[in-house]
Amino acid sequence: MMCKLLEKAGVPPGVVNIVFGTGPRVGEALVSHPEVPLISFTGSQPTAERITLLSAPHCKRLSLELGGKNPAIIFEDANLEECIPTTVRSSFANQGEICLCTSRIFVQKSIYSEFLKRFLEATKLWKVGIPSDPSASMGALISKAHLEKVRSYIKKARAEGAQILCGEGVDKLSLPLRNQGGYFMLPTVITDIKDESSCMREEIFGPVTCVVPFDSEEEVIKRANSVKYGLAATVWSSNVGRVHRVAKKLQSGLVWTNCWLIRELNLPFGGMKSSGVGREGAKDSYEFFTEVKTITIKH
Amino acid sequence: MMCKLLEKAGVPPGVVNIVFGTGPRVGEALVSHPEVPLISFTGSQPTAERITLLSAPHCKRLSLELGGKNPAIIFEDANLEECIPTTVRSSFANQGEICLCTSRIFVQKSIYSEFLKRFLEATKLWKVGIPSDPSASMGALISKAHLEKVRSYIKKARAEGAQILCGEGVDKLSLPLRNQGGYFMLPTVITDIKDESSCMREEIFGPVTCVVPFDSEEEVIKRANSVKYGLAATVWSSNVGRVHRVAKKLQSGLVWTNCWLIRELNLPFGGMKSSGVGREGAKDSYEFFTEVKTITIKH
Amino acid sequence: MMCKLLEKAGVPPGVVNIVFGTGPRVGEALVSHPEVPLISFTGSQPTAERITLLSAPHCKRLSLELGGKNPAIIFEDANLEECIPTTVRSSFANQGEICLCTSRIFVQKSIYSEFLKRFLEATKLWKVGIPSDPSASMGALISKAHLEKVRSYIKKARAEGAQILCGEGVDKLSLPLRNQGGYFMLPTVITDIKDESSCMREEIFGPVTCVVPFDSEEEVIKRANSVKYGLAATVWSSNVGRVHRVAKKLQSGLVWTNCWLIRELNLPFGGMKSSGVGREGAKDSYEFFTEVKTITIKH
Amino acid sequence: MMCKLLEKAGVPPGVVNIVFGTGPRVGEALVSHPEVPLISFTGSQPTAERITLLSAPHCKRLSLELGGKNPAIIFEDANLEECIPTTVRSSFANQGEICLCTSRIFVQKSIYSEFLKRFLEATKLWKVGIPSDPSASMGALISKAHLEKVRSYIKKARAEGAQILCGEGVDKLSLPLRNQGGYFMLPTVITDIKDESSCMREEIFGPVTCVVPFDSEEEVIKRANSVKYGLAATVWSSNVGRVHRVAKKLQSGLVWTNCWLIRELNLPFGGMKSSGVGREGAKDSYEFFTEVKTITIKH
Repeated sequence: MMCKLLEKAGVPPGVVNIVFGTGPRVGEALVSHPEVPLISFTGSQPTAERITLLSAPHCKRLSLELGGKNPAIIFEDANLEECIPTTVRSSFANQGEICLCTSRIFVQKSIYSEFLKRFLEATKLWKVGIPSDPSASMGALISKAHLEKVRSYIKKARAEGAQILCGEGVDKLSLPLRNQGGYFMLPTVITDIKDESSCMREEIFGPVTCVVPFDSEEEVIKRANSVKYGLAATVWSSNVGRVHRVAKKLQSGLVWTNCWLIRELNLPFGGMKSSGVGREGAKDSYEFFTEVKTITIKH
Repeated sequence: MMCKLLEKAGVPPGVVNIVFGTGPRVGEALVSHPEVPLISFTGSQPTAERITLLSAPHCKRLSLELGGKNPAIIFEDANLEECIPTTVRSSFANQGEICLCTSRIFVQKSIYSEFLKRFLEATKLWKVGIPSDPSASMGALISKAHLEKVRSYIKKARAEGAQILCGEGVDKLSLPLRNQGGYFMLPTVITDIKDESSCMREEIFGPVTCVVPFDSEEEVIKRANSVKYGLAATVWSSNVGRVHRVAKKLQSGLVWTNCWLIRELNLPFGGMKSSGVGREGAKDSYEFFTEVKTITIKH
Repeated sequence: MMCKLLEKAGVPPGVVNIVFGTGPRVGEALVSHPEVPLISFTGSQPTAERITLLSAPHCKRLSLELGGKNPAIIFEDANLEECIPTTVRSSFANQGEICLCTSRIFVQKSIYSEFLKRFLEATKLWKVGIPSDPSASMGALISKAHLEKVRSYIKKARAEGAQILCGEGVDKLSLPLRNQGGYFMLPTVITDIKDESSCMREEIFGPVTCVVPFDSEEEVIKRANSVKYGLAATVWSSNVGRVHRVAKKLQSGLVWTNCWLIRELNLPFGGMKSSGVGREGAKDSYEFFTEVKTITIKH
Repeated sequence: MMCKLLEKAGVPPGVVNIVFGTGPRVGEALVSHPEVPLISFTGSQPTAERITLLSAPHCKRLSLELGGKNPAIIFEDANLEECIPTTVRSSFANQGEICLCTSRIFVQKSIYSEFLKRFLEATKLWKVGIPSDPSASMGALISKAHLEKVRSYIKKARAEGAQILCGEGVDKLSLPLRNQGGYFMLPTVITDIKDESSCMREEIFGPVTCVVPFDSEEEVIKRANSVKYGLAATVWSSNVGRVHRVAKKLQSGLVWTNCWLIRELNLPFGGMKSSGVGREGAKDSYEFFTEVKTITIKH
C-alpha cells in the first residue's frame, strides 16, 4: 500500500524499496552491507546496539529511535479531570506497546490517595476485547513470547513486595470462548514499588504502569531522570513556573505538559540517553538524509 | 596551554578537561563510560570502529573525522604554474601526515608527461631537515613504527611493478650526523601503478604520492570515487562547467578547486563514506554538542 | 568612546562612522542620500514616517524600532509580591522614557482595590532626585518641552474626568533649591480613565501610568490590542494555560510574562503595527545588514 | 482560476482575496488602509515609491520587486553557440516585457564584431506575430501608450547619434491586414550608444537592447554597476575564476552565468538598489509574511 501511495505521489520507481523479513535474515544483511550509507531505525535498544556493531566497520550514519521508561509527573495543582483519563490512555493505549507510553507515574503525596482511587476506577473501565468490538479500548499483545515477558515483570514485582492493584493476576479477563487463547491481558497497576525494581527501570512495553508518591519538585526530577532512558516525559501542573522549570530539567527528548502525544510533525522527535540518537521531523530528517559537501572555488 | 587560554577566555573551571593518555588506557575508559554522552573523534578508521563498538551499548552520538585517500584531478586546461607547487604541498606538507593530504594524482593524458617532469623537479626542491633549519620543508615522521609502515607500502608498490621516480630508495637523504637516526624519509613519487594496488587504495599517511594518467572526465570521476574513503578531493581546471560538474559528482565531503586547504571555519568540515560521520564547523559543531528537547505546552 | 571600543575590537577604521547632529540637519541628509542603502532607526513614529518618505525614491531597506503604549495585564492569580515592584519599575524606570515602559495597567476586578492600594504605596517610595543622590530612583526629564508635553497629557486626563491618585499636581516634589529649575516631575498614577482617552492611546514617554480594571481574559486581550502600537506587553498570572493563551493572542512584538525587561540579545527584538518594522538581534540584525545575491552557475 | 485552484488545494475561503482594479482606484485604497499590515508588490519603481509614501503613516512591511536595467557581460572566452540564442531570448522574450530581460549587452572588444554579426542574424529570425501563429516568437506590446513610450526611447537614441541596426524604423514589419493596428514592433538592436544615454540607464520594458564593447573585466563591472538598478545580470565566460569573480562584484540580486532565467523557487529572488527591497522564495516569503513574537516566560 505504501509503495502504491509513493508511486501516486510521483516518487520515481526504485527510489523507495520495501524489503520484508526478520532482523537476522533481512535486517542484518541490510545494515552490514557496505553500500548502505545510513540507517534510520525505530525499535529496541538491544537491536540498536546490534545495528551499531554491524555498521561500525562502514562508518554509517545512524538515527535511532528506541525505547523509553517514560515518567508522568503529577503535581498537586494538576487538573485531575484532564490528567486522569489522559494518563490512563498514555499508560495503556495500544496495550502499552508504544515507545511513548507512560510506565512510571509519580504523584505528589498530598493527592496520592485521591489520584490512585480515581486512576484505578478509570483503568477498570478500559475494556479488553477483540478488534471488531467497538467498546474495546485494548486488544491482544503482539505475541505469546511478549505476553510471557510482560507477565514475568509483574510476577517479579509481586515477589519484591509490590502491590498489584488491578489487572493481571487480580481481576478476571472475560473474552469470547474462541478468543481465550489470544495474548490478552488486563491493564495492570502496580504500587508500593521501589525505584530500583526492574518494573521501574526497564521497558516492559505492555499494559503495566507503576504509581508512586513523591514529596518535592527537586526530588521527583531526580527520580524521573534516574533511569537510562530519556524519551518522553509528561508533566501535570497548572503553575507556569513549575511547568517550565520541570520541563527544562527533565532528561527527555520529548516533554508533554498537561497533555500527551500531541505532535507537530515539523518539530524534532527523538530521545536522549539510551532512548536514541538523532531526531526525526521535517527539518531534522531532511538533514539526516543529506550528505553535506563543502566546495571551495578559487577565483 | 589550551586550558590557560580557555580560562583566560572566561570558560568556567571544570567545563573543559584535558586528559592525556594512550587509547587503550585513557581513550577506552572515556568512550565506554556510560556518563559520557557523546564522542567527537579525529583519527584513523580502525580506531573509530573500535570507538563505535565500545559506545554501542550506551547509544552515544558520534562525530568521526577519519582518514582519506584524497585524489587531485588535474585537467589539461589547469593552470600548472599554480597547480604544481600546490600539489607538491598538498602531497608532502607535514610529511603527508595530514588527513587532507593528496595521495592520488590523476593527470589528463595530454599533459601527463609535462606535469610529471615539472612535478618531480618541484618535489626534489623540498628539503628534508630538522625543525631548526629554516630551509627545510619537511621533518621526521611521528615514530619508527610509522616510518617502517610507510616504507613497507613503497616496497610493496615496487614489488607490484610500480616505478618509484624519486625519494625513498632512489635518492639519498643528507642530514647532520646526529639526526641520522631520526625517522626521516624523502618525498616519494610513484607511477605506473594500478588503481587496485594498496598504495592507491589505503591511507599511507606519509610523504608518498602516486601520479597516474586519465583520459576523460567521466572516467576520472569513477576512479576517484572507487576507494572507500571520501574526505578531500582537489580539482584543477580553468573551465567553469567542468569544475562545477566534477565537484558535484565527487564522493567527497570537501572539494577544493584550483586550491588546497583553504578553510572557512564556519563551513561544514568532514568526510563521506569511511572518512567519517558528521561535520564540524561553527553551526555543525554547535548542533552536535546540543541535545534537542521538544516541549509541548497545552493552553 | 564607542569608536575607541570598536577600534580596540579590531573593526577597521572607516567601517563605522558616528555623525552627531539634529534630525533636520544631519538625519535628513543621511536618510535621503542615494548612496546610503539601508537605515536602522530607533525613535518615534512621526520621525519614522518622515524617514520613510525621504527614503522612498531610493528603495531603501528600513528597520524601525518605534514607540509603544505597552499594557501590563495582571490576573487575579498573579504573584503580587513580585508583580507590584516590577510594575512600578516598568512604569517609571528612567522617568518612563524607555520605549518598553508600561503605561496601561489592566487589573482583574477581584484584586483591583488591593492592587491599586499597594501599587500607590510602592510608587510613593520612588524618590525623585539628582543623579548624585544614591537614594533617587528617578531623575529629570529630557527637556523643558518634553516635561510640558507630559504635563499636558495629565491635564487633559483630569479635564476628561480621570482621577490623578498621586504625583503631578497631587503631591509636592522636594528638591534641593538649586535643582528646582530642573525638568523634574513625580511618578503619576491615573485611574477612572476611559480606553478612548489620549492617555490610554498615545505614547506619553514620561512617568505616567494608568490603572484600569477588567473582567475577563477575552475582554482584556481585546482592549490591550485596541491601540495602534504593539511593542511590549507584560502578563502576570501563575496559570500556565492562561499565560500561553494570552501571550499568543497579544499583538505585541515582545511579551514578558511574570517579569519585565529580561532580554536575551540573540532573540528577535522589535514591535508590531505602528511600533515598527523588522527585528533586531544577533541573527535578525545580521540578515538585515546583508544584501542577498543568488548566483546560478550552469555546468 | 487562481481562486479555484486555491480552494481545490484546501485554502480556507476568505484567506486569499483577489481584488481587480487600477492602481489609483483599488491599489491606493489597499496600500493606505491601516488594517493592511504588509504589502508585497511587483511592478515599477515609481509605483513602489508611491506605495512607500502611502504606507509610511502605518509602518507597513514592504516587499518590492521592481524594474531592472539588466546587463549581459560576454567575455571573449564565452561559448557563443549557447550565448547568442540565449541572449536574443533574454533580450526579446515576451517582447522584452519581463523585469529580468537583458537590455545592455557588453561584449569584449576582441569578439565584438563577430558577436554583433551573429546576434543580428539571430535577432532577425525572431518573427513577430499573433498568438495563434505557432512560428511567432514575439507578440504585441501591452498598450498603445507603452508602444509609444518604447518608440520614443529609440527616437531619442537615434537623435543622440546611436545606430539602430535592425527593427523599429529600419525593417518593415509584415502582419496580416487585420492585425496591422496592433501594438507590434520588431526586436530592435542599438549600438554606438553612450553609457549615459537614457536607453542605457532607464528601464524601457520593450524589445530593445543595446550592444556595446568593453576592454577589461574591471571596466565592465564598473559600467554594469553604474546604473541605479540591480536586478538580474548575466555573465558569459568559460573561465571559472572570472565567472565567480565577476558574479561576486556585480551589484545585482540575481546573477546568471552561462544561462538565463533558470530559477529554483526555493532560492531568494529579488533586486538590489532601485530594483527592490526584500527577497521572495520559499523561505524568504515565509519569513516576510510572518510577524515574529518574542515571548519570555519566567520560571
